[in-house]
Amino acid sequence: MSKQNSLVTLTTDFGLQDEYVAVMKGVILNTCQNARIVDLCHNINPQDIFGAAYILFSAYSFFPSGTMHVVVVDPGVGSTRRIVCLKTDKYTFLAPDNGVLSLIADGEKSLSIINVTNNKYFLPEVSNTFHGRDVFAPVAGHLMNGVDINELGAEIFEIEKIETPAPVLSTNGIATAQIIYIDRFGNLITNINRGLLKSFQIDGMYGALSITVANHRIKKINQSYSEVEEGGLVALFGSAGYLEIAVNKANAKELLNVEKGDTVTINCSKYIFNEGID
Amino acid sequence: MSKQNSLVTLTTDFGLQDEYVAVMKGVILNTCQNARIVDLCHNINPQDIFGAAYILFSAYSFFPSGTMHVVVVDPGVGSTRRIVCLKTDKYTFLAPDNGVLSLIADGEKSLSIINVTNNKYFLPEVSNTFHGRDVFAPVAGHLMNGVDINELGAEIFEIEKIETPAPVLSTNGIATAQIIYIDRFGNLITNINRGLLKSFQIDGMYGALSITVANHRIKKINQSYSEVEEGGLVALFGSAGYLEIAVNKANAKELLNVEKGDTVTINCSKYIFNEGID
Amino acid sequence: MSKQNSLVTLTTDFGLQDEYVAVMKGVILNTCQNARIVDLCHNINPQDIFGAAYILFSAYSFFPSGTMHVVVVDPGVGSTRRIVCLKTDKYTFLAPDNGVLSLIADGEKSLSIINVTNNKYFLPEVSNTFHGRDVFAPVAGHLMNGVDINELGAEIFEIEKIETPAPVLSTNGIATAQIIYIDRFGNLITNINRGLLKSFQIDGMYGALSITVANHRIKKINQSYSEVEEGGLVALFGSAGYLEIAVNKANAKELLNVEKGDTVTINCSKYIFNEGID
Repeated sequence: MSKQNSLVTLTTDFGLQDEYVAVMKGVILNTCQNARIVDLCHNINPQDIFGAAYILFSAYSFFPSGTMHVVVVDPGVGSTRRIVCLKTDKYTFLAPDNGVLSLIADGEKSLSIINVTNNKYFLPEVSNTFHGRDVFAPVAGHLMNGVDINELGAEIFEIEKIETPAPVLSTNGIATAQIIYIDRFGNLITNINRGLLKSFQIDGMYGALSITVANHRIKKINQSYSEVEEGGLVALFGSAGYLEIAVNKANAKELLNVEKGDTVTINCSKYIFNEGID
Repeated sequence: MSKQNSLVTLTTDFGLQDEYVAVMKGVILNTCQNARIVDLCHNINPQDIFGAAYILFSAYSFFPSGTMHVVVVDPGVGSTRRIVCLKTDKYTFLAPDNGVLSLIADGEKSLSIINVTNNKYFLPEVSNTFHGRDVFAPVAGHLMNGVDINELGAEIFEIEKIETPAPVLSTNGIATAQIIYIDRFGNLITNINRGLLKSFQIDGMYGALSITVANHRIKKINQSYSEVEEGGLVALFGSAGYLEIAVNKANAKELLNVEKGDTVTINCSKYIFNEGID
Repeated sequence: MSKQNSLVTLTTDFGLQDEYVAVMKGVILNTCQNARIVDLCHNINPQDIFGAAYILFSAYSFFPSGTMHVVVVDPGVGSTRRIVCLKTDKYTFLAPDNGVLSLIADGEKSLSIINVTNNKYFLPEVSNTFHGRDVFAPVAGHLMNGVDINELGAEIFEIEKIETPAPVLSTNGIATAQIIYIDRFGNLITNINRGLLKSFQIDGMYGALSITVANHRIKKINQSYSEVEEGGLVALFGSAGYLEIAVNKANAKELLNVEKGDTVTINCSKYIFNEGID
């Protein structure tokens, strides 16, 4: 198998203080000597399936065609939850069937999905607590060695989806969005993207709106953090295309004292500037 | 030297916020251009020799034959402590001689141990504060380049051992174990493994026992976290073979408010169900 | 292009909990298939340009000749700040022109500096929030593929410098230094190095001095942590050559309750032992 196809990324909630990530890498390298392993993220909050889905979704498409993406955020390990291998035209995904591939499956045309059951490609002894080591790592290694995904088990046609929070768009021009992710810089990423806002807005003009978060109002959507003064609140479309609330050179989460799940209201009605909410 | 043998893992207490790990990698790559470096763990608690020994022990054997494992948890840097290179039939270990290889040495048949003293393989200037950079990294690189370990110094026949906490097995069927490690998920790993418990138990039946930790009692050993309800306490043999106390989809350390070193009592006596400890 | 030159290090303030580092790696690998990526550090404090400059300076020279060092600590992303590519005889640096290369530029003879503007080597769509992905990563990949740096834009002759805190040397033999960095172990790294102290000291004898930090006095400069008793305060020249205050097997920052920026006084006057400061 060509070297080009030996790239594998790992997304887990294992953190970096224990040995779990290294053990997975050891097993992968023991199965596929030339594997090139890239850490996608290991600091997903323990058992946070949506968090993993979001991070994977934000990163996977930047990797070269042929990359394998392995996700082990797996609170149901040892239960009857399935393990699935999903192959699209560019990538192969290997993950527990718990919804962690929801966002991928929405956006990609998946060529085939396999219910991974063939223990010929697992470690000889499979524990009930660490399938990352016993199942995911060796299966990934074997796939990179050229094993056909149809060898892994039977084809299936549906995977589990998680309900992803969606913004509510009212008829009077007000969108109620949520903060779905807060990054290291304290930037607040909402679940409303450029296309959705454009379709919703009167005239499709970004200028004519008002964004309210934690009793603060932002009156326009900017292009970059540095368009406002230092310490100023700014709304913009972030790098993944979602509406993001930030503070130039500071931390919006701390300044506004908000949490994941909190509401952000986008008012695109005609009368926004008469509301006196300020 | 074959590419296969150029795999090296690093275990340190350097953390990831400073430049120390990168400096070691730079020196390794400057010595051995084709080295493939895998982070085993860099978040060992500062100067925690037992923690490093445990993590290394839990991970090393999953790597391919020929892998070199370098450990730099080295509170005695600059003192007279030795640096040792220990070669087994499958792996080469390079570490300060402070007990960090204790668990390895107990389980592996070591072919040879070298007291690393030949400064021909060190950096030209050796500091008294950063042997990871000045000694361990270049020696690892030279070994991967094919230097024979006997070039590094004289053979020795003993390494330092640390006292590893051992469970106390009483004649009346009660084992007093300790929590030796707590992982990111808050799972409590004890120092009693499957073999030890089996040998100790009346009848060798896992069912007939009672486990007490922080005034909570667990009445059986399960196979997976998800065999108990969410939030329920569960005992099982963890991925490294040790008895582990966990909470399904939550954090046992936080729930029970326990620390490393705390006691876990396993009662295998005949009368456990009449004790009324519940 | 030879494999030897495909080594690239990354220094960012992205942390490891988000997808940003992985996205940069994906883009690099998508541009230059054989790139070998080493994390120099991703835990620079958000927008801490001096911190990044210090870490880069402490690590870059240990990497093999031909290594590319990419730095993305970029609070001015989306503003008019330039992106520069600086080529020395051994390394290529790619960074925002915000002073993060100050310490490098002081020490290296730079062969050429380019103002990176040629968007032929950027991603097709360049955001105003994530130049790490849209500019730095693809440019790094193209350079590793053999693109000449003169293709990237026009030559310039100056880069931005940051004011780096310098010790004040008085004529009466007293140096007032600052703590410029505190590492994971709580070691306090000052801005006074061996050469500076030597040139300043009467007789050039390390012994004849007194170091005061947070009302504690240290009366000599030692060679290693373990030359003092456990828990004892020690001053020595650390691995990067700067005077460092540490506690043997413990944490000086916590013991002394000091912060970055705090003062360390080195008294080399003739009468230090009569001062009674103890």
